[in-house]
Amino acid sequence: MTITVHHLNNSRSQRILWLLEELGAEYEIVPYQRDASTNLAPPELKQAHPLGKSPVIEDEGRTVTESGAIVQYLCERHGGDSWLPAKESDTHISCLEWMQFAESSFFVPVMMKIMAGRLGEDAASMMPRIDEQLAAHVAYAEERIGENLRFAGDDWSAADVMMSFPAQIALMQNFGEKAPKLARFVGEVHDRPAWKRARERGGPYFGW
Amino acid sequence: MTITVHHLNNSRSQRILWLLEELGAEYEIVPYQRDASTNLAPPELKQAHPLGKSPVIEDEGRTVTESGAIVQYLCERHGGDSWLPAKESDTHISCLEWMQFAESSFFVPVMMKIMAGRLGEDAASMMPRIDEQLAAHVAYAEERIGENLRFAGDDWSAADVMMSFPAQIALMQNFGEKAPKLARFVGEVHDRPAWKRARERGGPYFGW
Repeated sequence: MTITVHHLNNSRSQRILWLLEELGAEYEIVPYQRDASTNLAPPELKQAHPLGKSPVIEDEGRTVTESGAIVQYLCERHGGDSWLPAKESDTHISCLEWMQFAESSFFVPVMMKIMAGRLGEDAASMMPRIDEQLAAHVAYAEERIGENLRFAGDDWSAADVMMSFPAQIALMQNFGEKAPKLARFVGEVHDRPAWKRARERGGPYFGW
Repeated sequence: MTITVHHLNNSRSQRILWLLEELGAEYEIVPYQRDASTNLAPPELKQAHPLGKSPVIEDEGRTVTESGAIVQYLCERHGGDSWLPAKESDTHISCLEWMQFAESSFFVPVMMKIMAGRLGEDAASMMPRIDEQLAAHVAYAEERIGENLRFAGDDWSAADVMMSFPAQIALMQNFGEKAPKLARFVGEVHDRPAWKRARERGGPYFGW
């Protein structure tokens, strides 16, 4: 059965397409474009999700929301066992931590920076703390990613899928030199044939 | 073996104490107090977590961070099977969604509001959109919580543990009348003997 992905350009939903390609799952994309001036998601997304969020998937009559839940769902139901470390393993816990970190801890300074950017001079007094927080979160990920460039254990995992977006944001925020492992990690992600296929189907994705 | 909880007052770590009490696990608390003027976590927390975050737990020589990962870890390793719906069930997916929602989607407008509050008049132009977003997220949770006042299925689950904090925030932000089910849900949480014990051990928690 075909999975439907409500996909917003230049967003966290790109990694859902990547995972679907890795799993060899059949899917179709319903595309949405950000507003050219505000960069906000278009109101049409509210038909897929009352809060107008992406990604959302539909599968077998069920809607699944929240990136972390979607990634875990796809791994569990669509042949992605190898992407979720076994429950008894230490890497299982690392995987859970990074899957949460990617969408919660990391996004606080990112969203703050976006908001402060909109306020311009009015938020200038907060910018040093926001920048310090963003740098601290990038440094934390850089310090903890394995020497093998994987977030949880020896192999690719759901943690890597989830963390690919924060790592890409770190590069876009010019942390490449300070976070060379994250930069190499992003390079390896983009070299995956599955990522290339997802990029092809999902359309333009930032500069990549 | 005793679990150590690094616990910040008036924070998301309160629900970790609650879950530990529900599971009958042995734990000890390392308490931290927010700075009275800035309301920020004290720098001592950085000894437990490089990013100065709470909660953090230590168990059998392992540190676990991120609320969602900690809750899942405790359910999986400390007798909380009944708190995590079986992987094959529909409620499993609902549980994953709410565990993510509680810390990611919901917290974007909450953190925005805190930041805008600090900026005062300078951020006044953004406040209507922030308030609208916060109201939309509260309404979404209100609409979807079950008539039985559980977020995932018939019984208490990890979703309820995670969502207790956003629901408490909704009440503190005066959404009680607009979100009567969330208000009753919080009431039921606070009536749990385990929650009362956690409140006793954790110390003052907002007005409750």
